[in-house]
Amino acid sequence: MKKHNFYAGPSILPQYTIKNTAEAVLDFAGTGLSLLEISHRSKEFQAVMDETQALFKELLDVPAGYEVVFVGGGASLQFCMVPYNILNKKAAYLKTGVWAKKAQKEATAFGEVVEVASSEDKTFCYIPKGFEAKVPTDVDYFHITTNNTIYGTELHKDPDVKVPLVADMSSDIFSRPIDISKYSIIYGGAQKNLAPAGLAFAIVKVDALGKVDRHIPTMLDYRTHIEAGSMFNTPPCVTVFGALQTLKWLKAEGGVKEMQRRALVKADKLYSAIDGSRIFRPTVTDHEDRSYMNICFVMKDEYKDLEKEFLDFATAQGMIGIKGHRSVGGFRASTYNALPVESVDALVAVMKEFESKH
Amino acid sequence: MKKHNFYAGPSILPQYTIKNTAEAVLDFAGTGLSLLEISHRSKEFQAVMDETQALFKELLDVPAGYEVVFVGGGASLQFCMVPYNILNKKAAYLKTGVWAKKAQKEATAFGEVVEVASSEDKTFCYIPKGFEAKVPTDVDYFHITTNNTIYGTELHKDPDVKVPLVADMSSDIFSRPIDISKYSIIYGGAQKNLAPAGLAFAIVKVDALGKVDRHIPTMLDYRTHIEAGSMFNTPPCVTVFGALQTLKWLKAEGGVKEMQRRALVKADKLYSAIDGSRIFRPTVTDHEDRSYMNICFVMKDEYKDLEKEFLDFATAQGMIGIKGHRSVGGFRASTYNALPVESVDALVAVMKEFESKH
Repeated sequence: MKKHNFYAGPSILPQYTIKNTAEAVLDFAGTGLSLLEISHRSKEFQAVMDETQALFKELLDVPAGYEVVFVGGGASLQFCMVPYNILNKKAAYLKTGVWAKKAQKEATAFGEVVEVASSEDKTFCYIPKGFEAKVPTDVDYFHITTNNTIYGTELHKDPDVKVPLVADMSSDIFSRPIDISKYSIIYGGAQKNLAPAGLAFAIVKVDALGKVDRHIPTMLDYRTHIEAGSMFNTPPCVTVFGALQTLKWLKAEGGVKEMQRRALVKADKLYSAIDGSRIFRPTVTDHEDRSYMNICFVMKDEYKDLEKEFLDFATAQGMIGIKGHRSVGGFRASTYNALPVESVDALVAVMKEFESKH
Repeated sequence: MKKHNFYAGPSILPQYTIKNTAEAVLDFAGTGLSLLEISHRSKEFQAVMDETQALFKELLDVPAGYEVVFVGGGASLQFCMVPYNILNKKAAYLKTGVWAKKAQKEATAFGEVVEVASSEDKTFCYIPKGFEAKVPTDVDYFHITTNNTIYGTELHKDPDVKVPLVADMSSDIFSRPIDISKYSIIYGGAQKNLAPAGLAFAIVKVDALGKVDRHIPTMLDYRTHIEAGSMFNTPPCVTVFGALQTLKWLKAEGGVKEMQRRALVKADKLYSAIDGSRIFRPTVTDHEDRSYMNICFVMKDEYKDLEKEFLDFATAQGMIGIKGHRSVGGFRASTYNALPVESVDALVAVMKEFESKH
């Protein structure tokens, strides 16, 4: 039976990435050696790293003055790297979910932190409105989380603020064009739209660095990785190779504009099915706040006791990873770039079939 | 032609690891999904993480009171994590190579650092003698690097000191039995004897933690990873899976005692060939300091101009990764656990053939 992979992350990757990685694990670039056992200093791997960086910049239209670095530790390590590198006295944060909250908390050890707005009062089921005007003008930066994986909300536009902007784009990078020039740092874990787990990326405005007085541990200093082309120490080679395959696939498929078009098609189909359902309801009601990457829904109150039954029913028909996060409950279907529209159609069909039985 | 993989790291892994990883990239644990796209919160991956930790502890005979954590960022990130977690006022370091030097330098931002001894005067071609007696008794810990990958020296015994001992064992972990109870922290990158690149391990004495006053960023606090079973954030799933395969192979092959026996056989063959050569000479002359993992040799002065020719000659016969590090020159053959003795025999044969031609 065909499996439909709706995991929130690590999550579905293109078959192109999977097939090429499996082949490279057996024989990498014709070397006769496995990708798992090749030196990162070999010319074959250096070529992978160089091409990954170049294609990353090309596909996101990264302007001059910015560098892209790949580091280990995931986005969670970036939560402290950002303030380490650019928080002098004061930073502002938008609290739109548990990851945004963690990022904000981490910064409090480095300086004063202003909470511009929060949607915690309603389990983060919306994006606070008018936050741009509330950002203090004397902060070193303003931090946002563009997509909130757990709650299914998303900022679909690059905000306009008068201070340096920092964004965690772990779960929506490469899903739409971004105006990089509006940001000082964009970072994220790679394990949604880009690569297998084990890599974080950061797009860094070089001018934003070098303005804090504190000592920065070598590995936490963005300049270390910029100067070394992300090869200061051994990079996670398999993950970087996987990222390159996904980027090649992305380019061949039409780039981030095409991914945005597909995301809208998939999200529209699924949200329409949820909105039109007799037994399901969406957790995010404000249409402009709805994520195109993570679509959350629950059973209506009168059908609440059917949740387990639906989960079992959908799982038995090949729907994988649709159980919602425990803080929201219900269901979550993640519709990342690599998820084909057929998987959304299949889920909608399963939802309708279940509904017709009740 | 068969390739013999002598890379210093990432380096040769067992065929068992390579084959199983390639298969899991196509279908992981019968899920119908790739290892690259499976949620780390799935029961199938949780089982991998649990078994990896258990087998890691079993094979190294890790005593009660110690925990094993897996984190991203490589050993280089551990250089700051160690002082972050346990350096209050003063630490002592043994400078036996470029990695030891980097670890030592990183600690200077956290407290006073005493250099107990150094072999930098002779390009780190030996291990300083009698260092144990020179370790100050008032330091928070004493840091050693047990194997120096670039220079080919190794500490073959767990030192006896009266202060907490910390060791970077990146390149000789699992190559011999260790008396873990002598150490407070043992850490290392996984990409030599354990797994593909992208993972660091730390064996931490739990009692050693919680004694510093400074704020520790969440991701740099060993307690974060101990409490969360190395699943505080998304772990590098493919790398952890690879580690588990290597650990299973290691157990089936007879464990670390058998690895030590094999390492001695391989090292003895290669050092004997070098010592007995008319044109090659070892860079580490003191037998007790010689690494069993990285065997360094150069051309004797009168044959110096043949280096390039030998490298080409050996490469053409399938010897991969034997070029020495630029700071030592010449050649380096890494003989990690997964390298079969046949590869050492093949290299020795190539050396003898080359010698007979000159």
